[in-house]
Amino acid sequence: MLTMHTRADMEALDRADPLRAFRDRFVIPEGLVYLDGNSLGMMPRVAAARAARTVEVEWAQGLISSWNDHGWIDLPLRVGARLAPLVGASADEIVACDSTSINLFKALASALALRPGRRTIVTNAGNFPTDVYIAEGLCRLLGDGATLRRVEPRDLANALDDSVAAVAYSHVDYKSARLEDMAGLTAIIHAAGALAIWDLSHSAGALPVDLDGAKADFAVGCGYKYLNGGPGAPAFLFAARRHHAAMQQPLSGWLGHAAPFAFEDSYRPASGMARMICGTPPVISMAVLEEAIGIVAEAGVDRLREKSTRMTTLLADLVAQEIGDSGLVLASPVDAAQRGSHLVFAHDEGYAIIQALKARGVVGDFRAPDLVRLGIAPLYLSHVELWEAVQRLKAVMQNGEWRAPRFRVRAAVT
Amino acid sequence: MLTMHTRADMEALDRADPLRAFRDRFVIPEGLVYLDGNSLGMMPRVAAARAARTVEVEWAQGLISSWNDHGWIDLPLRVGARLAPLVGASADEIVACDSTSINLFKALASALALRPGRRTIVTNAGNFPTDVYIAEGLCRLLGDGATLRRVEPRDLANALDDSVAAVAYSHVDYKSARLEDMAGLTAIIHAAGALAIWDLSHSAGALPVDLDGAKADFAVGCGYKYLNGGPGAPAFLFAARRHHAAMQQPLSGWLGHAAPFAFEDSYRPASGMARMICGTPPVISMAVLEEAIGIVAEAGVDRLREKSTRMTTLLADLVAQEIGDSGLVLASPVDAAQRGSHLVFAHDEGYAIIQALKARGVVGDFRAPDLVRLGIAPLYLSHVELWEAVQRLKAVMQNGEWRAPRFRVRAAVT
Repeated sequence: MLTMHTRADMEALDRADPLRAFRDRFVIPEGLVYLDGNSLGMMPRVAAARAARTVEVEWAQGLISSWNDHGWIDLPLRVGARLAPLVGASADEIVACDSTSINLFKALASALALRPGRRTIVTNAGNFPTDVYIAEGLCRLLGDGATLRRVEPRDLANALDDSVAAVAYSHVDYKSARLEDMAGLTAIIHAAGALAIWDLSHSAGALPVDLDGAKADFAVGCGYKYLNGGPGAPAFLFAARRHHAAMQQPLSGWLGHAAPFAFEDSYRPASGMARMICGTPPVISMAVLEEAIGIVAEAGVDRLREKSTRMTTLLADLVAQEIGDSGLVLASPVDAAQRGSHLVFAHDEGYAIIQALKARGVVGDFRAPDLVRLGIAPLYLSHVELWEAVQRLKAVMQNGEWRAPRFRVRAAVT
Repeated sequence: MLTMHTRADMEALDRADPLRAFRDRFVIPEGLVYLDGNSLGMMPRVAAARAARTVEVEWAQGLISSWNDHGWIDLPLRVGARLAPLVGASADEIVACDSTSINLFKALASALALRPGRRTIVTNAGNFPTDVYIAEGLCRLLGDGATLRRVEPRDLANALDDSVAAVAYSHVDYKSARLEDMAGLTAIIHAAGALAIWDLSHSAGALPVDLDGAKADFAVGCGYKYLNGGPGAPAFLFAARRHHAAMQQPLSGWLGHAAPFAFEDSYRPASGMARMICGTPPVISMAVLEEAIGIVAEAGVDRLREKSTRMTTLLADLVAQEIGDSGLVLASPVDAAQRGSHLVFAHDEGYAIIQALKARGVVGDFRAPDLVRLGIAPLYLSHVELWEAVQRLKAVMQNGEWRAPRFRVRAAVT
C-alpha cells in the first residue's frame, strides 16, 4: 500500500460516486453498516409500495382476474426478460421461478437428458452446499450409474472424460469470492462434450456476466442477494436458446404446459423457457423482485462492478492500514479482477468477531470454519461506511471485544 | 324440492350464521359476488398488515437478523404445525413450502423409494392436470419401467397389483367436486401393499380432513384456495410419522439438511418433515399464509363444513327454483355429503355464461369442456350473496346475455 487513506478521502469518493443517488432508493437503518447484501439485499423503497399494491389492490380487489388484468401470469417470463441483459442473456432465455436449488435440479436433469449415455456430474467440493446436495439427490434418485464427481476448477481440464454430462460451478465462490473464468472453463467443458451450468448467486447484480458470450448452457441464480428481491425471493433459470427445442425437465407442472388452462390429460411442454416453470408462482415475492431488478438495471452492472472493485480493494487496504497485525488474514484473491463483490478474512475466532462486530452495528457473515465474510453491495453502500466498518472492526480487534463470552456461543443461524 | 326459498330466508340464515363475523375479517369488493374462493381465496385484512410488517419492518429494518429475530427460519415447520389440526395431522407431520406440484414430486419419489421393486404410480385421468403431469415427469426421468397408470377411484380395487408403489388421488375433484372416501380407498391401497398420496387442494380449509385417521401416507395441498394464503402462496406436504425415519426425497436442498448452516460437504437429511424442505422459503408469502391459516383455524373446519354443505345445497335448490329449465345441468354429486365445497353445472355454452356472469359481478370459473364452476367459500360468503348470484345468473340465462359476441371469445386465462 503506497498511500494512506483518510475519512476525508472516503467522503470525496462518495461525492464523486456516480451511483450515490441509488442509496436513497433503499431503506438504510440508522447507524447500521450492512456488509451482508450478498446474503440478503436491503429493501428498495419501491419494494414496499409494490408489495402493498399487489396485496391490497391486485389481490384484495382484483382477485382471480388479476392473473390477466395485472399480468400475474406473465411474471415468470417478464421478470426473466428484465433480468436477462444483466447477465448477458437474451430476453427469452431466462425465467424467474422456484428456488435456486430447484432450478439447479431442473438444469442438471435437463443436461443429463441432453447427453444420453453420460452419467457423471462434476462440481467442486467447495461449491455452495445446496449445489452439491441437489446433485447428490439427483444421482441418488436416478441410480443406474449416475455419479457426482468433485473436481476443482483449476484441475478440470485433466478430469473430464466422455462419462461427464455436465459441470456445475459457481461463478463467484460464496466463501473466497474467487471469480471463475466462465468462458474459459465453458470452452474446456464443451471440448469434452459436456454441458456447462453456472450458479450466478454471488455475481448476478454485482458484476457483468456474459452467459451468451461464454456459451454457457444453463445457469441458475438467487433473487435475494445482489438483486435485492426480498427474503426468499424467487430464483432464476437460464437455458441457452440452442437447447430450447430439445430440453426437457422433470418437474413438469401445469404452468410449464403448452396450454396450461386447457387442462389436457397429458403433459405437453410449452415452448422455450416456459417449459421450465412448474407450479403457480409466488406472486407477491415475484412482483417485489421485478421492482428490485429494475433498480439494478438502472444502475448498470458495469458501473456497479467499477464501484465494487474499488470498494473491495479499499476495504482490504483499510483493514491493513488501520488494524495492521490483527491476525485477520485476507483469504480472497488479492487481485480485484479475480474476485466478486465480497471479501473474506480468516481468523480462528471468526465467529466471535462477527458477533462482536454485530454488537457494534456492523453486519457481516461468519462462514465455517474460520471466515469473516464482508459483502460489498455497490448499489447502496457508501465509502464512508467502509471507513466506519473498519474503525469498528479495529475496536473489536484492539479491545479484544470478541473475547466476551456472549459472542462465543454459536446460534443456530449466523 | 319441497319448500320455496326467499331472499328473506337468506337474510334469516345470515343472521343465524355462527360464522357471520368472519366476513368482516376479509376485504369484500363492493357489489361483487365471488364464487371463486376455491381458485384464489379472498384477502384477510390481517394479511395486508402482516405483509407490510414483513416487508417494512422485518426485511427493511431487521435484514439478515430476521431469520432468527423474527423466526423466518422456522416458518415452514411453524406454518405446517398450524395447518396440521385442520387436516387431521400431528403438528410434526406437515411442512409448508414450494408449490403443490413440487411437493407432489417429492411425495411420489419418496413413495417409490419406500416401495423398492414397485414401479407403477396410479392416478385418475380426471385428476387435476398438474398431478398427472408431475407423475408423468417423474416416470420419464426414472425410466427403468416406471409407469403411470390411470384408474378411476371406483375401479381401484380391481386394478391394483404388486407393481403399484403409490396411488395419488385428489380428495375433492376440481371439476365435479366429488369427495372421495379417503379412509376406504387408503385401506384398499394398503391392502395391495402400496402407499396412498392425497391432494387436498380442494378440501383443506373447507371441510374436515382426517389424514391420520385415514392412515394416509403422504398428502399435498394448496395454500391459496380455501386457506386464503394469497396468490401463489406456498403449498404444503404431509408425511405420516411412521415414514419419517426412512423417507428420502430427491430435492435435497440445503434447508432440508440436518445442519443447514454448517455448510457440510455432503447431504445429511434433517430428521422429520424438515428433510422435505428444499431451498429458501418465500418469506413474505409464507408470513401471509400463516395469518390466513389462523383465521380458518379460528372458524373451525366442522363449522365451515356445516355451512358449506348447507350453502351448496341451497345453491343447487335456488338454481332449480329460480331458473328452472335453463339447460344448466348439475354435474356435481347430488348428495352434499359426497361433494366438496363447489358445484359445477354443465352447459354447452359454459364459457360464455361465466363471462356474462362476470360482467354482472359474479365471479366463477369455467372448466373445459362445458362446466360452470361455482365455489362456496363458507368462511366469508353470505347466504344473501347466493341469492344475488342466482338472480344474476337468471338474468344471464333468461336474457340470453351469454350470446353477446364479446363473451364468446376465449381468453388465455379464465
